[in-house]
Amino acid sequence: MSESEPPPDQIQTHSQDHDSLTLTLPLLSYRQRSVNSTSQVAIVGANACPIESLDYEIAENDFFKQDWRTRGKIQIFQYIFMKWLLCFLIGGFVSLVGFFNNIAVETIAGVKFAFTSNMMSDRRHGMAFLVFSVSNLLLTLFAAILTAFISPAAAGSGIPEVKAYLNGVDAPDIFSPRTLIVKIVGSISAVSSSLVVGKAGPMVHIGSSIASLFGQGGSRKYGLTWKWLRFFKNDRDRRDLVTCGSAAGIAAAFRAPVGGVLFALEEMASWWRSALLWRSFFTTAVVAIILRALIDVCFSDKCGLFGKGGLIMFDAYSANVSYHLADVPPVLVLGVIGGILGSLYNFLLIRVLRVYNFIYEKGIIYQICIACTISILTSFLLYGLPWLASCQPCPSDAPEACPTIGGSGNYKRFQCPPGHYNDLASLIFNTNDDAVRNLFTKDAMSEFQLTTMLIFFVTCFVLGILSYGIVAPAGLFVPVIVTGASYGRFVGMLLGSHTNLSHSLYAVLGAASFLGGSMRMTVSLCVIILELTNNLLLLPLIMIVLLISKTVADAFNGNIYDLIMAVKGFPYLETHAEPYMRQMTVADVVSGPLQLCHGIEKVGNIVHILKTTRHHGFPVIDASPDSESSVLYGLILRAHLIALLKKKAFLSTPIRLGVDDAFRHFSADDFAKRGLGNVDKIEDIELTDEEMEMFLDLHPFTNASPYTVVESMSLAKALVLFREVGLRHLLVIPKITSRAPVVGILTRHDFMPEHILGRRGGGGGLIQLLHMGLTLETETAKTDPAPAV
Amino acid sequence: MSESEPPPDQIQTHSQDHDSLTLTLPLLSYRQRSVNSTSQVAIVGANACPIESLDYEIAENDFFKQDWRTRGKIQIFQYIFMKWLLCFLIGGFVSLVGFFNNIAVETIAGVKFAFTSNMMSDRRHGMAFLVFSVSNLLLTLFAAILTAFISPAAAGSGIPEVKAYLNGVDAPDIFSPRTLIVKIVGSISAVSSSLVVGKAGPMVHIGSSIASLFGQGGSRKYGLTWKWLRFFKNDRDRRDLVTCGSAAGIAAAFRAPVGGVLFALEEMASWWRSALLWRSFFTTAVVAIILRALIDVCFSDKCGLFGKGGLIMFDAYSANVSYHLADVPPVLVLGVIGGILGSLYNFLLIRVLRVYNFIYEKGIIYQICIACTISILTSFLLYGLPWLASCQPCPSDAPEACPTIGGSGNYKRFQCPPGHYNDLASLIFNTNDDAVRNLFTKDAMSEFQLTTMLIFFVTCFVLGILSYGIVAPAGLFVPVIVTGASYGRFVGMLLGSHTNLSHSLYAVLGAASFLGGSMRMTVSLCVIILELTNNLLLLPLIMIVLLISKTVADAFNGNIYDLIMAVKGFPYLETHAEPYMRQMTVADVVSGPLQLCHGIEKVGNIVHILKTTRHHGFPVIDASPDSESSVLYGLILRAHLIALLKKKAFLSTPIRLGVDDAFRHFSADDFAKRGLGNVDKIEDIELTDEEMEMFLDLHPFTNASPYTVVESMSLAKALVLFREVGLRHLLVIPKITSRAPVVGILTRHDFMPEHILGRRGGGGGLIQLLHMGLTLETETAKTDPAPAV
Repeated sequence: MSESEPPPDQIQTHSQDHDSLTLTLPLLSYRQRSVNSTSQVAIVGANACPIESLDYEIAENDFFKQDWRTRGKIQIFQYIFMKWLLCFLIGGFVSLVGFFNNIAVETIAGVKFAFTSNMMSDRRHGMAFLVFSVSNLLLTLFAAILTAFISPAAAGSGIPEVKAYLNGVDAPDIFSPRTLIVKIVGSISAVSSSLVVGKAGPMVHIGSSIASLFGQGGSRKYGLTWKWLRFFKNDRDRRDLVTCGSAAGIAAAFRAPVGGVLFALEEMASWWRSALLWRSFFTTAVVAIILRALIDVCFSDKCGLFGKGGLIMFDAYSANVSYHLADVPPVLVLGVIGGILGSLYNFLLIRVLRVYNFIYEKGIIYQICIACTISILTSFLLYGLPWLASCQPCPSDAPEACPTIGGSGNYKRFQCPPGHYNDLASLIFNTNDDAVRNLFTKDAMSEFQLTTMLIFFVTCFVLGILSYGIVAPAGLFVPVIVTGASYGRFVGMLLGSHTNLSHSLYAVLGAASFLGGSMRMTVSLCVIILELTNNLLLLPLIMIVLLISKTVADAFNGNIYDLIMAVKGFPYLETHAEPYMRQMTVADVVSGPLQLCHGIEKVGNIVHILKTTRHHGFPVIDASPDSESSVLYGLILRAHLIALLKKKAFLSTPIRLGVDDAFRHFSADDFAKRGLGNVDKIEDIELTDEEMEMFLDLHPFTNASPYTVVESMSLAKALVLFREVGLRHLLVIPKITSRAPVVGILTRHDFMPEHILGRRGGGGGLIQLLHMGLTLETETAKTDPAPAV
Repeated sequence: MSESEPPPDQIQTHSQDHDSLTLTLPLLSYRQRSVNSTSQVAIVGANACPIESLDYEIAENDFFKQDWRTRGKIQIFQYIFMKWLLCFLIGGFVSLVGFFNNIAVETIAGVKFAFTSNMMSDRRHGMAFLVFSVSNLLLTLFAAILTAFISPAAAGSGIPEVKAYLNGVDAPDIFSPRTLIVKIVGSISAVSSSLVVGKAGPMVHIGSSIASLFGQGGSRKYGLTWKWLRFFKNDRDRRDLVTCGSAAGIAAAFRAPVGGVLFALEEMASWWRSALLWRSFFTTAVVAIILRALIDVCFSDKCGLFGKGGLIMFDAYSANVSYHLADVPPVLVLGVIGGILGSLYNFLLIRVLRVYNFIYEKGIIYQICIACTISILTSFLLYGLPWLASCQPCPSDAPEACPTIGGSGNYKRFQCPPGHYNDLASLIFNTNDDAVRNLFTKDAMSEFQLTTMLIFFVTCFVLGILSYGIVAPAGLFVPVIVTGASYGRFVGMLLGSHTNLSHSLYAVLGAASFLGGSMRMTVSLCVIILELTNNLLLLPLIMIVLLISKTVADAFNGNIYDLIMAVKGFPYLETHAEPYMRQMTVADVVSGPLQLCHGIEKVGNIVHILKTTRHHGFPVIDASPDSESSVLYGLILRAHLIALLKKKAFLSTPIRLGVDDAFRHFSADDFAKRGLGNVDKIEDIELTDEEMEMFLDLHPFTNASPYTVVESMSLAKALVLFREVGLRHLLVIPKITSRAPVVGILTRHDFMPEHILGRRGGGGGLIQLLHMGLTLETETAKTDPAPAV
């Protein structure tokens, strides 16, 4: 966010010329924010990166207008056809990656568990531990080294990055091919290494990366361009594709196509149109159909260990579930406690992340050390804890071999004598997917012991929190589901015969309560859980649990992804305005004085302006025909100015150019936005002194109708415009027209609470604000915007 | 839409002062629109009504700002608490109405069928027909008389009216208590009278009406007001509640809580925030839980015929469905034909509606005659057609008594000998719900004959189209589902042994294809069908069918609700801009000259302006302190001017008032928007000549920061602002500031294609537009906005 952030000495407050400071009563009490910054720099992965905003506004200049007019039916057909084709390709690729991901994890983890189990059967326990822990360590190390050295942006879940991107924040490298490869390979090896990390978050990032690469329009560097793709070289179309990609990611991870669309809608997207709903539905339908076909192939055992492990669908219930009013109170309690635990999970996760970030600043070696430490700790716990559990005799009516033979199975023998199995090992010494399936499906009351469940819950809770922050691709969904399911099952076992609901149903509800408490989604989580468990009769109970756990958790802190975005420093623009924004006008926050261009400007001046500022948009003014004052002509983007300079089609005299002249020198491709944050820099353009004295007519390339607001508008109202329309620059015009035609430019940055506080005089700003009776958000205001007449 | 529509003599085109008319090539070819009008008058029910826009913009005047500041924590708590409480109450009431609705229909229809069946068993066929047709006629007549004489707005589905309301179009009387009562009672009697009409649409209207009444803040007339409700006296909060109410309606009609939320999101709502998702999810959860509890009570047979008939859930599948690639091609064909038939359904329905509307203009008696004719025709067909079908022997393993004893059952004996049943009668001589349940569940291949299915399909198709337009509450969902299910089952039977899929599965897919072809929703229909049939394994097939049928149908015409809105003349504002809007500037369509107010205005002038215009917003200008020209101060609403005049707190001299003075004379309640379209009229305010000579200071009550656009902005870009932010008035300011401070006001009306054509000189406008190379929308442009760089 570098546009129109002025050097500190230029900051001036307009507090003298409006009356919103003479407040009588504070609206709400002040609450301190723990967010660190929304400066131009964000922590992506483990490194600090410069970040930019995206351009969603239609740049309505004469040149583009003319370009639209020259588009015939064929071009429009190309555009529509390509958009659907790209959605189809995104769905296809994402489902293939998801499928490959699953096979790879099942195979690697399966071989590992098979080896270890066989050694344990031979009573070579030390050797078994060595194989187990060393293979885990190597896998983790591989993922960590890949991530730390090749693409730090691939670390973590990726959902916060994609969510920020869809809000208009472009952190570089998050969608690069490098990141994509690291994310796929790293996610497979991290999940296979028995760390308590998930694959759903990485799948969302992978889906979005694939979509973004398709939307790139090929690579000019490698000659991989196609004319038909040229229409997608803009941020609006890429945003649509990335939204579809994120929906496809969830659809592939959980085999939940409808859940994927709703996840993209509820959690990811900041702008939504019904055409986008329709297109993302198409994308996830492609995913569902391809996955279904691939599973059909695999059910005939042609996919190695995968065919048995199944894809991600847990398919928990085919029996009818019946429940009565008496069963509701314990479910309510489950929801309340789940909400508290979920928000505690968020709280602790963020603390751990901050500690990790602090350590990570010391160097890459520290990052890798932490990953190794967590891996060794995990191996110790996973191998050590099952020894605490007592052996159970195999049930006579077990649906599969008991104890398990080979790697994949749910009756782990571990240290037990033949004919017995270790129930804790069945959960903990297994892949997370299998553990969830165990918790969700096994209905025999004696299957698990109470202590087993407690140990498993605590282990997952702690390891889940510690593992997320390591430098490797790591999702949050599966750890939260596993932890929640064990919590729910534990509660169900505690209740014993006081409830009619089965333990496995409690596991599902527990998972729902934990998800609700941590992720805070409603409809999408509801549908994802239904698609996972495949039973719609659970619906009312799941709805209750989600409602309660979300409500309870909202009282403590925010959505986990929002918290992570805050830690990473993304300037995410919320929909709702904080109450204090109603008391401030845009004049209070807007920066000035501005760098202006004239309609026909000297090349040297343009170069000077571009070199001395880092703004991304410049107002263009013209002399008024009938008076002394100047008139606002429009807004020109830095990228377009650089494109103009690069072509060097300068004028020797300051005359006004027609659109046709502009078309002779330029094509629309010159102004197309390149992908992956690649931008030409002003420093790379070399101009002679003679050229510096020449002129450029900016009129054909200036957006002649930028959105404007009057300086006396409240910040809240300007935010509505900025957010709903999806702007990067919002021009502020003066109330009295005799002044300069433009007061300043608002950018995303100006709506950030940190910036608003900062403008009021650095450290003292806070006190000053309080003194004036201005107040910051409260929890209640977060849930609901303040009432208005 | 009466605001700022100028008298015809004031129309002036600004076409001379911009260059967008000098186009070189047409973007898209012209397509004629069949929409009749978007004037100030719309056909609601069968009468023409004046319609208004809703105010969603935050009126940021000094008075309201001061009012917000004086709100403490308690008020904010009241607001939030009330908002959730209202959602709870809406959910509760809607579920009770839905439940009552079902019991009533089941009972009335059950008694009717039982009587008739008993007479037929006694071989008194003539008498049976008489009882059947007379009871149907009486029920239809009752519904028609209620609707025609008491509340014409209750006719039809109600979904188009609610959809238009949520877009900002306020047709009077659609949410009045009178309409609500007529809708409930009329819907019960229309559905019971064996007409092919549904109850889902009316339930949506009922849900929205209940929500709107709760949001009314009680009734001042009957002293039913509560201070805590005062925060809801504005259009924004009412919009949220009505959205929740419409979600609750679908949730109650189909017992599909998630489907209800998605329906409200995809089809109904024009503006959506994640807080609203969360709140409507809560509302439908309440519906789901209460319905579940009520059904529990009814399963113990305490609810008469209802307990057996079941609620609306069809619960078709508990068995696993398996299908393979070979089954996909017939499903694709099913989807294509379903899409064609669905769009044909829409086409014919609209034609019939237009014919009806033409007849209805002749008088109420004609309206009732048509209703009676349709009822008699329906009785003839329903009673006559089963005679064509041959009798089938009862299966030995029938799950219920065969032939059916009494009113509710699925093996109707009709004219058959004992031990036999008539398969066509089981479908046609039954309630629509039971028919759907029969089609969706019965899997025996011999259950229905091919001719039976064909006769039933044609009957439903024809009667569904003829019945919708009668003057009675009539939904579209159930007729479309019944028709689609019979179509699908027919296709399944035609395929015979060439497919592995069961006939009942074909019925579900056929219903999906018809819904997709007629309603054109995706995610919400998908979830509603899943919730109806309770089997998630169908998901990929349903997704394919919906995608295909929607795509095919979109090639022919629009969504059925949009078509009905067009027939009714609602000025619905689309999200996407038509391509020709990019070629026009706002100056081309804006009306002028304007009626302006001065900051301190004479009472007589205000009265004159209000009496001579029907505008709803007036720019307020001030003299500029340093020049001759005037300065735009803001925008004041007609409603606020009338509130000021009503209080008669006039000034004897033109001095500027402080906010504190304003507070002394007025309270926020004076400006609260009243519900149900009740507005004070200027004609009702009587002022003396002396008062007419006094002054009013408008400054504290003027929205000092209205949204503005520059006159050179393209219409498409202005539409984005207008639509996304939800405006009623959009001020257009001049490019050159030395002119008058405001060029005109854009309203919803100015974005309507009809109006844009009209401005270009009435009948000749079209040719003129074509001559200029301006072009109107095409089908492709509807699916996708035109590409942009």
